[in-house]
Amino acid sequence: MKYEFKVKKIDVTAGGKNVVVLNKEDAEDIDVGIMDRVKVKTNGKEAVAIVDLTEKYIKKGQIGCFSDLVKRLGLKNNQKVRIEPIEKPETVEYIKKKLDGIELSKEEINAIIRDVMRETLSDVELTALVSAMYIRGLTDKETIGLTKAIINSGATLEFKKRPILDKHCVGGVPGNRTTMIIVPIVAAAGLTIPKTSSRSITSAAGTADTMEVLAPVSLSVEKIKEVVEKTNGCMVWGGGVNLAAADDKLIKIRHPLNLDPKGVLLASILAKKKAVGATHVLIDIPIGLGAKVASKKEAQALAEDFMKIGSALGMEVNCIITPGYDPVGQAVGPALEAREVLKILKGEQVSPDLVEKSLVMSGLLLEMGGKVKKGQGRLLAEKILRKGEALQKMREIIEAQGGNPDIEPEDIKIGKKSLDIYSKETGRIFLVNVKKINSIARAAGAPKDKGAGVYLYVEKGDKVKKGQKLFTIYAESSRKLKAAQELVEKLKPIEFEKIILGEYSTERKPMVYEFH
Amino acid sequence: MKYEFKVKKIDVTAGGKNVVVLNKEDAEDIDVGIMDRVKVKTNGKEAVAIVDLTEKYIKKGQIGCFSDLVKRLGLKNNQKVRIEPIEKPETVEYIKKKLDGIELSKEEINAIIRDVMRETLSDVELTALVSAMYIRGLTDKETIGLTKAIINSGATLEFKKRPILDKHCVGGVPGNRTTMIIVPIVAAAGLTIPKTSSRSITSAAGTADTMEVLAPVSLSVEKIKEVVEKTNGCMVWGGGVNLAAADDKLIKIRHPLNLDPKGVLLASILAKKKAVGATHVLIDIPIGLGAKVASKKEAQALAEDFMKIGSALGMEVNCIITPGYDPVGQAVGPALEAREVLKILKGEQVSPDLVEKSLVMSGLLLEMGGKVKKGQGRLLAEKILRKGEALQKMREIIEAQGGNPDIEPEDIKIGKKSLDIYSKETGRIFLVNVKKINSIARAAGAPKDKGAGVYLYVEKGDKVKKGQKLFTIYAESSRKLKAAQELVEKLKPIEFEKIILGEYSTERKPMVYEFH
Repeated sequence: MKYEFKVKKIDVTAGGKNVVVLNKEDAEDIDVGIMDRVKVKTNGKEAVAIVDLTEKYIKKGQIGCFSDLVKRLGLKNNQKVRIEPIEKPETVEYIKKKLDGIELSKEEINAIIRDVMRETLSDVELTALVSAMYIRGLTDKETIGLTKAIINSGATLEFKKRPILDKHCVGGVPGNRTTMIIVPIVAAAGLTIPKTSSRSITSAAGTADTMEVLAPVSLSVEKIKEVVEKTNGCMVWGGGVNLAAADDKLIKIRHPLNLDPKGVLLASILAKKKAVGATHVLIDIPIGLGAKVASKKEAQALAEDFMKIGSALGMEVNCIITPGYDPVGQAVGPALEAREVLKILKGEQVSPDLVEKSLVMSGLLLEMGGKVKKGQGRLLAEKILRKGEALQKMREIIEAQGGNPDIEPEDIKIGKKSLDIYSKETGRIFLVNVKKINSIARAAGAPKDKGAGVYLYVEKGDKVKKGQKLFTIYAESSRKLKAAQELVEKLKPIEFEKIILGEYSTERKPMVYEFH
Repeated sequence: MKYEFKVKKIDVTAGGKNVVVLNKEDAEDIDVGIMDRVKVKTNGKEAVAIVDLTEKYIKKGQIGCFSDLVKRLGLKNNQKVRIEPIEKPETVEYIKKKLDGIELSKEEINAIIRDVMRETLSDVELTALVSAMYIRGLTDKETIGLTKAIINSGATLEFKKRPILDKHCVGGVPGNRTTMIIVPIVAAAGLTIPKTSSRSITSAAGTADTMEVLAPVSLSVEKIKEVVEKTNGCMVWGGGVNLAAADDKLIKIRHPLNLDPKGVLLASILAKKKAVGATHVLIDIPIGLGAKVASKKEAQALAEDFMKIGSALGMEVNCIITPGYDPVGQAVGPALEAREVLKILKGEQVSPDLVEKSLVMSGLLLEMGGKVKKGQGRLLAEKILRKGEALQKMREIIEAQGGNPDIEPEDIKIGKKSLDIYSKETGRIFLVNVKKINSIARAAGAPKDKGAGVYLYVEKGDKVKKGQKLFTIYAESSRKLKAAQELVEKLKPIEFEKIILGEYSTERKPMVYEFH
């Protein structure tokens, strides 16, 4: 049966989902309930939408359409649409299969990703899928199938040159702006490295947020090709192009619960690498408190999986395991980081940990790309950096992406409001808590306020005296500076070594200090 | 930090959830993202809500509030509310624990159910919980903890008399209106049986829908007590009272994927029994194609769990396993079923399977309640039915609940439009497909149109001739009758025995007929 309704636009996003709102009486009349699916047809276009109900807001004969569906079908108010109740897609059965521990076929995985792209699966169904993948795990076959399905869900880049290099860091360490040093070095050496990066979700800045201080990062696929063909490299926002499109939709579901099934993580990362045409990939797996991976053992297993799945997809994947306990650079926040990167490329002595990590990784990429023999990469990388070739390459890339190639560190605007934080005690620093530093930088306005952030003067192991400056908070408004200051007092992001970490007593309730 | 916004009401339900919509710029400014949580405060009331975003519909400074939150806080347009971004509730960590296969403590389960009642967990989080419970299973300790938490989430009934009897059927067989025959028989024998039932979700009628044809079923806890104290029994809608309140909220999440983790099923059923004060419970577990439980083995394991968990909660639980392959009664749909029940109570010879099943179950309850010795129950039940005592008791209950006690079968209005369906072939009936009969009855308008439904003249094993009447469809409108007729042709709900059920050939694609 088909039924006709008049569109009433609801300018609220349903997070990408197609959602329609029907009057309760209409819904009962055509026997559809909340969360049921209907096909919405108009002007030769159609989409599957999920039903929500209302008593008054949508009158009988009207159909409320959330903005995602309005965009998809180009709907106008009072436009007539025909709706048809439909059964659940067969992919719901595949999700149930996975819940029951049955391996999914390539075809079933393709069908699921197709429905993910069409937005025909509800959040409830997608969550069940991700939960099932998390608990049941994915077989190698499933992981490879999922990776290929994600690649096919979007556009791909193709370059004639070989090799195509790429790098990736498995989440979560602040100030870790290696990409913006590695890409110029590798590209300056004549190797191709088309790098896509993400924006921050919960951190103070993603590489895309920081690069955006220097140049536009939302480029089309054609523009990216042009930039890379001209300069050998690029640093763009992956979410701004249609590469590995399904991945963004899966991330939305993984995020709220921090559910990162290993197979999905592997597929998500490798699909993005394969989609830019990478032949050689270096993956950085930081371990520790603030990082995604907790232990070395877990990191080793992950590294082996990356190599195995990568190889099945025709990519050479190398992995390094790095310490993810502390911030890597001194600067946290888009503008502060961008300025720090420019200073490093100009040869200034700042953020030594960040410089060293970038040189080691660049060296490995130069070796993987065949520029030098094993063991010679770091030296070449350092030479390229010292000679200013990396700086020159960075300026070329900035120009090609549409930024100002002549920008100098002091041109970058940092938040005008600032506050120095001093040590209240004397002792040795036990930990600079990366999550807490992130929270403080975000309270100060990062990443939205580009000039907001934190600049650190100390690191783990440093002996500091009472009254010594620990870090400076920058913000663009007094209100946010105050919010960040309040958070410093609450969170105490810099922890000193203590003799006793926890205390248990039979006479009192257990006293446990924060323990790492 | 706290921020002030002006309310704009959005008269759309978010399925019970508290959802607020913020302008994207405001959201970035206060650093909350889609699906984050905020505390909404006004006039001394507060609630936790989940954030959605919009670009235009909600202006800066406004906060869109879905109708569930509007009701909860009594909001008015332009009213000022203060919002405060908050962290995820700790229960999200417990859900993560369960995903990781760690047993939850009593306190953690209580906290989860508390947050379910406060609507502070998102559908994504609840789905992850249900998926984890489905895959990981629940330990006995967890099941008992969950049952108690569900009981404590709502009101409870208390009666001075002992024993208190109850019965339950584990889902899914149409025409299975045993409750409306059993309750009058057991109550007529002088035993107390305060029965709550559900409305239909996907079937043509739930017991509450059918009983509603005879009397109001949405009664308050106080009214239910009054009815039971007067008549020994009642037949009310469980969803209309606040008994085991958390269960309704969990069902919403289990429904879209048909996810019924055994521990949750046990807790859900036993909590509802315990909440009405039951001391002795008879549980009917139908098995087969249309039923919730597929095999006898599975049913046996479930029965043992019911007894074990019931005993831990201080209830004596007996179980029976019954065939759930075919419809139990001839009538499907609220009015048709209500008329059938009255006819049976009056001693007419209709729906013999339904009569027999009801007598056997009544007998077991009479034995459990100590009215007769083991083996004597069915006889007493039949005597009560034959003497008209059950009919008399039914009239008392109808009156106590506010219905017309003098109602006769012919007073019940059946849909005026009807269509007889005749057999197109001669042969023996292999199956009356319960799901398909349900679909046809729903297409005809059931359960919303009380008079709509299907009346069956044949059952499995019957030999029928071409042209013989199989069933009649009743509807309240010609349009719906036509919709049901179309479905009959599409679904073919009555299947005949065949020599060949499936055919495989090397020369053609496999041909598989519908197989059971």
